[in-house]
Amino acid sequence: MSAASGARHLVSVGDLDREAMLGVFHLADAFKEVAERPIARVPALRGKTVATLFFEASTRTRLSFETAAKRLSADVMSFSASTSSLEKGESIRDTIETIDAMDVDAMVVRHKSSGVPAQVRAWTKASVINGGDGQHEHPTQALLDCYTIREALRERAPDREAGREDLRGLRVGIVGDVRHSRVARSNVLAMTALGAEVVLVGPRTLLPPSLEGWPAKATADLDGVLDTLDVVYLLRIQKERSEAGLLPSLDEYHRRFALTRERASRLGDRALVMHPGPMNRGVEIAPEAADLPNSLITRQVRNGVLIRMAVLFHLLGAGGPLTVEQTDA
Amino acid sequence: MSAASGARHLVSVGDLDREAMLGVFHLADAFKEVAERPIARVPALRGKTVATLFFEASTRTRLSFETAAKRLSADVMSFSASTSSLEKGESIRDTIETIDAMDVDAMVVRHKSSGVPAQVRAWTKASVINGGDGQHEHPTQALLDCYTIREALRERAPDREAGREDLRGLRVGIVGDVRHSRVARSNVLAMTALGAEVVLVGPRTLLPPSLEGWPAKATADLDGVLDTLDVVYLLRIQKERSEAGLLPSLDEYHRRFALTRERASRLGDRALVMHPGPMNRGVEIAPEAADLPNSLITRQVRNGVLIRMAVLFHLLGAGGPLTVEQTDA
Amino acid sequence: MSAASGARHLVSVGDLDREAMLGVFHLADAFKEVAERPIARVPALRGKTVATLFFEASTRTRLSFETAAKRLSADVMSFSASTSSLEKGESIRDTIETIDAMDVDAMVVRHKSSGVPAQVRAWTKASVINGGDGQHEHPTQALLDCYTIREALRERAPDREAGREDLRGLRVGIVGDVRHSRVARSNVLAMTALGAEVVLVGPRTLLPPSLEGWPAKATADLDGVLDTLDVVYLLRIQKERSEAGLLPSLDEYHRRFALTRERASRLGDRALVMHPGPMNRGVEIAPEAADLPNSLITRQVRNGVLIRMAVLFHLLGAGGPLTVEQTDA
Repeated sequence: MSAASGARHLVSVGDLDREAMLGVFHLADAFKEVAERPIARVPALRGKTVATLFFEASTRTRLSFETAAKRLSADVMSFSASTSSLEKGESIRDTIETIDAMDVDAMVVRHKSSGVPAQVRAWTKASVINGGDGQHEHPTQALLDCYTIREALRERAPDREAGREDLRGLRVGIVGDVRHSRVARSNVLAMTALGAEVVLVGPRTLLPPSLEGWPAKATADLDGVLDTLDVVYLLRIQKERSEAGLLPSLDEYHRRFALTRERASRLGDRALVMHPGPMNRGVEIAPEAADLPNSLITRQVRNGVLIRMAVLFHLLGAGGPLTVEQTDA
Repeated sequence: MSAASGARHLVSVGDLDREAMLGVFHLADAFKEVAERPIARVPALRGKTVATLFFEASTRTRLSFETAAKRLSADVMSFSASTSSLEKGESIRDTIETIDAMDVDAMVVRHKSSGVPAQVRAWTKASVINGGDGQHEHPTQALLDCYTIREALRERAPDREAGREDLRGLRVGIVGDVRHSRVARSNVLAMTALGAEVVLVGPRTLLPPSLEGWPAKATADLDGVLDTLDVVYLLRIQKERSEAGLLPSLDEYHRRFALTRERASRLGDRALVMHPGPMNRGVEIAPEAADLPNSLITRQVRNGVLIRMAVLFHLLGAGGPLTVEQTDA
Repeated sequence: MSAASGARHLVSVGDLDREAMLGVFHLADAFKEVAERPIARVPALRGKTVATLFFEASTRTRLSFETAAKRLSADVMSFSASTSSLEKGESIRDTIETIDAMDVDAMVVRHKSSGVPAQVRAWTKASVINGGDGQHEHPTQALLDCYTIREALRERAPDREAGREDLRGLRVGIVGDVRHSRVARSNVLAMTALGAEVVLVGPRTLLPPSLEGWPAKATADLDGVLDTLDVVYLLRIQKERSEAGLLPSLDEYHRRFALTRERASRLGDRALVMHPGPMNRGVEIAPEAADLPNSLITRQVRNGVLIRMAVLFHLLGAGGPLTVEQTDA
């Protein structure tokens, strides 16, 4: 994602090293101050166009990117597959080349097939941002998650942690359908690059068959590791997995792997609770557990906008030092 | 809806007294002058974000709110349920908290269940505006309807009515499916608070079973009251009502309750004709009756934008005296 | 489309003479320079609202108009039939009058029935632009196509063609389902008004039954005319035509009428290749033929934005001489 390398895309969080991620975090820190202004806009990307191309629907992620783009004064072009000429048999490539010809500056691409955003780079002059592809990656989600952990630690222990930059010394449990989760994959890469230790937790059928490419440990025993975790990161359980026979039952899953009220009280204030949303309350998380003081779930959404502002600015901005100018309000 | 009370929401028109409604009308008067400028924009809400959350579709009302927001230079975030994570089982509360975390300033909420906008207030820091909830209320519709009557009277009899502020001395007939209509309920509350007398007209099956909470009279005899009305307000007939056995037939309904050509000519120029749209021409109104000179139907749409500008400005603006500045065009 | 006549609409390209079309091209030339600026915006239509009313879906055309409007600093109101009150039985007329009452300045109307944009003019004060109606016309498509040919000739032979304004001396083949194509109809009118000779090519079942109203020749023998063409304009084949028995089969169509690799190599660099999109690669065009150096297909998309900027500016702008001011960036 660095400007120096000539690459102006964000397809995999694995392309970012620790320094690159910290650079994004510092931009997000600057934009957090902008967000507190009466007029929370900067003219940084005025005249630029950010297209969101969601071949797979996700209102949450799309709105986050579009809000980020608008706060930077960029124009937004919103493309959704459901009403598009894809239905008339046009190829993705022709769709991309068509949007490209309208001179957009960035394309945020979400697709149910892994690898589409990487392919798209060849078909456009625009910067390509992976908004989630199949079971592959969701890099901005991982960046916002790591940023949220860093922020929570800084705020909760200002004496010890005020200068914390990365996730060194932390142990994160990612719990749920790890095998099929792009959120899990991107987070394992980002968290470990930032110094955390990650343990994947779930039934064997939902853990990766091999840990090759997953720099993490794995276990099916949540209760055995719970007391060692600084962060409990819950993944959404898709009910279809149960129907497909990959889970014994949703009740059984809940009993063994959910953040129940009991497990939440074992954690107390010690560990942070996270979830990428949308939650299935009552499945992977007890209805009340999402609202506990150590839950960062709405904070993740808020920081999602900041991180996406940082990524858009980094990819589309002047590439020089960040100068957050006052908007001409 | 007053700033003084700390409440910055508009859920029921019943929360507004006469003075509060006149305050909205005076704002709308000011914005009417803005609308006549070559560049019909004011920077009043620059940097604010208005989210429209239409869990029930209504292009008409959504576009009206979004147009109002844009004329005030606010950003618009448009959320529709059909493509949202609600379909993935997320609760409305989690959806609201997610949108809230993106720092929106107002949420316009429409939902097929009564009471949702009132609930939503607890889940967000944003101002909540009821865009229509179930059979409960549609407060901005009532405000724009009353404003439109006041404006029409002022213009039609400038000698007598130029200074008219409220609806004192008027008799309004609301005709149709009153029982199931949030438009009727909000209008009865607003019109009577502004001094009008309201008579509800329709078949018994479509009138409220009791008039408790409806400060109005009721009759099934349109022709018996028609000559006494200053305003004939027609409600949309949903054809499903006929299928559900609540109407004898659409033909029968038309014969007894529609504004037919004959009834329109009885009214002449004396009474004003209104409809909240969308119309079923040929059902509750004769095809040509909507286009008569005493029809205010398109005027209602035009004033809808002004009233929604006024409501948004009142809820989100500085709260001080209204100063409509020239935009920096 | 001229301001002098009082008509401020663009319904048929047949309403434009050569001079009017060249006027649009000169505006597009000016906007091309704008597009190359770091901030590709002009404040020409600030405070104006352009509504896109797509009763028939077309993401490609809608995004092109919306991008054009935004580059001119106009606001965009996007109306699609699928979520609208049309589904509740409202007439198109009432929908138009409702949108009109919200004070939009231009309506871009697309509808599957011929003649709707012409009708719409009677129902609104806004300028009406035909975004494609039934089998009738698609005037902005024809303008962008002619502009693209003119531009390509100027660039490819700057010594001879730098001053070229129209299409005099060119022979254009329009190949495919001409009979049902609004793109073909508009292009025949525009191209011939600009001095080109047009030959329509396709199976008899897809050619107009009579050439009355089509100032062109017609043939079913593509290979017989291919060597005489300066431009090969391919139309999209809708697979439903084959199912309806109007084509022998898609394979047979491909063999006789597609721009195959063999035909493309016969053309060489001599003839330009065009297509309005979306393409059915493998049906009317060989997969690789769309990407040859003499293909103008993505250039057509790019110029579509310029031409729509020119049309919007012409219809909504001051009507005086074009002054492209720098935006206040």
